[in-house]
Amino acid sequence: MVKRSRSMTPRRKVYISLEPRAWPFGISPVNLAICGLILLSMVGAIVETEPSISRGHERLIRALEVFFSGLFFCEYLARLWVCVEDRRYRQPFLGRAKYAFTPAALLDLIACLPLLLGVSSSESLLLRFVRLFRVLRLARYGQLARAVQHVFKAIMLRRYELTVSIIIAVGMILASSTLLYFAEREVQPEAFGSIPRAMWWAIITFTTVGYGDVYPITQWGRVFAALTALSSIGLIAMPTGILASAFSDAMRRGRDEIVTHTKHNKIIK
Amino acid sequence: MVKRSRSMTPRRKVYISLEPRAWPFGISPVNLAICGLILLSMVGAIVETEPSISRGHERLIRALEVFFSGLFFCEYLARLWVCVEDRRYRQPFLGRAKYAFTPAALLDLIACLPLLLGVSSSESLLLRFVRLFRVLRLARYGQLARAVQHVFKAIMLRRYELTVSIIIAVGMILASSTLLYFAEREVQPEAFGSIPRAMWWAIITFTTVGYGDVYPITQWGRVFAALTALSSIGLIAMPTGILASAFSDAMRRGRDEIVTHTKHNKIIK
Amino acid sequence: MVKRSRSMTPRRKVYISLEPRAWPFGISPVNLAICGLILLSMVGAIVETEPSISRGHERLIRALEVFFSGLFFCEYLARLWVCVEDRRYRQPFLGRAKYAFTPAALLDLIACLPLLLGVSSSESLLLRFVRLFRVLRLARYGQLARAVQHVFKAIMLRRYELTVSIIIAVGMILASSTLLYFAEREVQPEAFGSIPRAMWWAIITFTTVGYGDVYPITQWGRVFAALTALSSIGLIAMPTGILASAFSDAMRRGRDEIVTHTKHNKIIK
Amino acid sequence: MVKRSRSMTPRRKVYISLEPRAWPFGISPVNLAICGLILLSMVGAIVETEPSISRGHERLIRALEVFFSGLFFCEYLARLWVCVEDRRYRQPFLGRAKYAFTPAALLDLIACLPLLLGVSSSESLLLRFVRLFRVLRLARYGQLARAVQHVFKAIMLRRYELTVSIIIAVGMILASSTLLYFAEREVQPEAFGSIPRAMWWAIITFTTVGYGDVYPITQWGRVFAALTALSSIGLIAMPTGILASAFSDAMRRGRDEIVTHTKHNKIIK
Repeated sequence: MVKRSRSMTPRRKVYISLEPRAWPFGISPVNLAICGLILLSMVGAIVETEPSISRGHERLIRALEVFFSGLFFCEYLARLWVCVEDRRYRQPFLGRAKYAFTPAALLDLIACLPLLLGVSSSESLLLRFVRLFRVLRLARYGQLARAVQHVFKAIMLRRYELTVSIIIAVGMILASSTLLYFAEREVQPEAFGSIPRAMWWAIITFTTVGYGDVYPITQWGRVFAALTALSSIGLIAMPTGILASAFSDAMRRGRDEIVTHTKHNKIIK
Repeated sequence: MVKRSRSMTPRRKVYISLEPRAWPFGISPVNLAICGLILLSMVGAIVETEPSISRGHERLIRALEVFFSGLFFCEYLARLWVCVEDRRYRQPFLGRAKYAFTPAALLDLIACLPLLLGVSSSESLLLRFVRLFRVLRLARYGQLARAVQHVFKAIMLRRYELTVSIIIAVGMILASSTLLYFAEREVQPEAFGSIPRAMWWAIITFTTVGYGDVYPITQWGRVFAALTALSSIGLIAMPTGILASAFSDAMRRGRDEIVTHTKHNKIIK
Repeated sequence: MVKRSRSMTPRRKVYISLEPRAWPFGISPVNLAICGLILLSMVGAIVETEPSISRGHERLIRALEVFFSGLFFCEYLARLWVCVEDRRYRQPFLGRAKYAFTPAALLDLIACLPLLLGVSSSESLLLRFVRLFRVLRLARYGQLARAVQHVFKAIMLRRYELTVSIIIAVGMILASSTLLYFAEREVQPEAFGSIPRAMWWAIITFTTVGYGDVYPITQWGRVFAALTALSSIGLIAMPTGILASAFSDAMRRGRDEIVTHTKHNKIIK
Repeated sequence: MVKRSRSMTPRRKVYISLEPRAWPFGISPVNLAICGLILLSMVGAIVETEPSISRGHERLIRALEVFFSGLFFCEYLARLWVCVEDRRYRQPFLGRAKYAFTPAALLDLIACLPLLLGVSSSESLLLRFVRLFRVLRLARYGQLARAVQHVFKAIMLRRYELTVSIIIAVGMILASSTLLYFAEREVQPEAFGSIPRAMWWAIITFTTVGYGDVYPITQWGRVFAALTALSSIGLIAMPTGILASAFSDAMRRGRDEIVTHTKHNKIIK
């Protein structure tokens, strides 16, 4: 395939550079650059929220945003131009329209919104979200997405075990919240004045986070809290065991996939 | 069995709808509705404790309580009517009396208490408990109850291991409380003034919850606390390993049960 | 052996009742009562430290102490009387002297100290320790002591792995303390003013206890603390895996022991 | 080799004592003493940072520092003298120069810096670092260094699994920080005013450390924080499972190595 590339049309060349599944092995340089830009844009969106860093650089941030959005818009147009090379979108108009409504293409379009809606409104909450959501576009680039898929598949295979352990956990959290509600509601109405309020304490205790913003002060409250803390060992042991073995299964499958990946790619195409 | 349903008496039809073990597969629509009502009633009982939500809706809450209790009372009467279809309670009077004193029937009756005792006293602690305890009626509905049973059976099978690890844990908690009591009792009499008080600290530290309401401030107290925190790794590793393998055994058995469930049901009946 | 008991001397009968290894199966009623007394005496010693419970009952506590110490002294004398039934202490005088200096006999004697030294000094720290240390006398009663021994043996078998993981853990705690010392020593001299002080923070963070009495406030301190918190996952995973498998080995061996216990007892004797 | 030691030159004798790989079995007495000195020097450097201990003993500390640096300098010179016994550094001048630029020799030289630069500047930050970094010189002494190498090799073998789990973890930390940033930024601008600030909270919560210096107070913040705390169970289960099995593999290999160590040493030489 690489050998025949001299006789290719420019559109085909761009298609092969842009479409990860068309590239014979690994990730094409163009896609690597796009990945880098997406990560850079997201890191920018994260760092920019810190006022002590962004203050005084508002103009630079806007300029960068125009630059990133412009690049992503070019990428979007390029993808729209070359998508007809894909077997699924062969017809020039209907195929492109079909492509434009795939989730991946819509996500690409949303990523350019800061440019299309005008940079002046760049400070709005919506656009800040847009910049953070750009990271989802990385899902297009194979291996990681596949690994995550394997993890989710492995979790789905154990959904019976996980459902049982979640129901037991919910039951224990409810029982614990109810006991603490009855023990502490009069002494600490702010923290334990209702069962939903006591649930905040129960979850933070069961997961052994233990911020210490809320804790029992009555004798019975402490007895129940001690029992809650001790039973957290069992509560965590159950899903930990299930998830650990699910993950190790998923990983083994994910690793095998890498080995058979190139071969698979060639056969599929 | 479903095929012969046209020739059934109404009582038999109601019995099959109400009794989970008589329904050929899964859960009957009537029982599904009852499950939903129980969960709804319990969620209501939980949410209602939050004053910022329940304030101003006292009348609505009482009306809902009458409605739920009335439905559960109808269900109780219906179960009492049809229980004679069960092989164990065949005689019209003696059988019904026998059924009325089974734990399940008593639980059903308790669930209607808010109606029977009058809604005016609905705010009392007892009735609030009643509404929360309704959730236990879900135990009648097969799979989850069976899964929980499997978990308990699996834990019982390792009772020797668990007993040993609990005794070691109790010993370590006592040793740690005693050391901290001797190290801190003069500096912090409120928190470490007696061994039972120091046990609150020891349990919260061993389970790695660490609220931070109580912590050592003397040098020796910190040395012992650091050792306690480090030994918590071993203390948690022991029951975690035992419980994780017990749960995974229980789950495998619970899953097999589902496969053989319908078959088993038919043979038993 | 039980069949020949009619022809036994009283000394032999007392010996069989007192010596756990001489009793054919399980624990003799006399030893069960002694176990109960030891536990009761220890629970008393723990509860008594709580001033809100012990205040006003000082006389009762002293009377109970005389009672317990008296009983334990009688038990000590009885054991001294019957020890000559044991093959190892056959000679009336030399054997008894030899027995009196075994660790078990010395522990029994120490348990009576509150009686021998006079109850008036019962409030002293030493005697409080004595009462708590009585629990060690339970070590004489087989199964638990054997289970604990198995756990220790299993830990010893993995001493190489544990040594490596402890050295890595110590290295990480030192590295983390040093980094935090350099980052925070000027801002929080009280908490991070020296490496030994920063180690208190490091241990509480690595074990994920996280009291919150000490935490970094500078930027670099937070970066190093976040890395410390994240690496705690690996730090805990290492000994947890080693200990969990060591415990499961120990438990399997401990269980097998119970099965072969009676048989073994008979052969040994 | 030991048998031929009478006919050895003094240089060869010193070489065998100093070079761990030349010593036939275990660690030579000279190296054991050097290990002890290094550990002592490091413990001194740690303890010395505590003002309540070092105050008033500045002269003693300087004298000890001259002593330790002097000893390490003698050791450095001795190693430089005997290094020509090594096959790799045979030529008297070029070999010694080559040896002097190996990382081990440079580290040895750095360890003597406090002596060479003058003790008067001993309080400077650089020299404090030097004294702590001396511990790295222990890496020369076989077994531990090899065990740590095995652990790192085992981790490297699972780099695919670890990369996936780190990316999932980073994604969850970012998602959690972003949610809390949007929920709490107006109520607690100091703690959640930007995503990087919220990440401090997210890491401390995900690792279940939970200092309690920062915690959500709004309703949505608490809902997201509860979900974060619950998902921490899965987040920790993943790398824990991977690392625990990697460590157990590394340990098995490390143990086998010890068995074949002496034999290997003799063959290599």
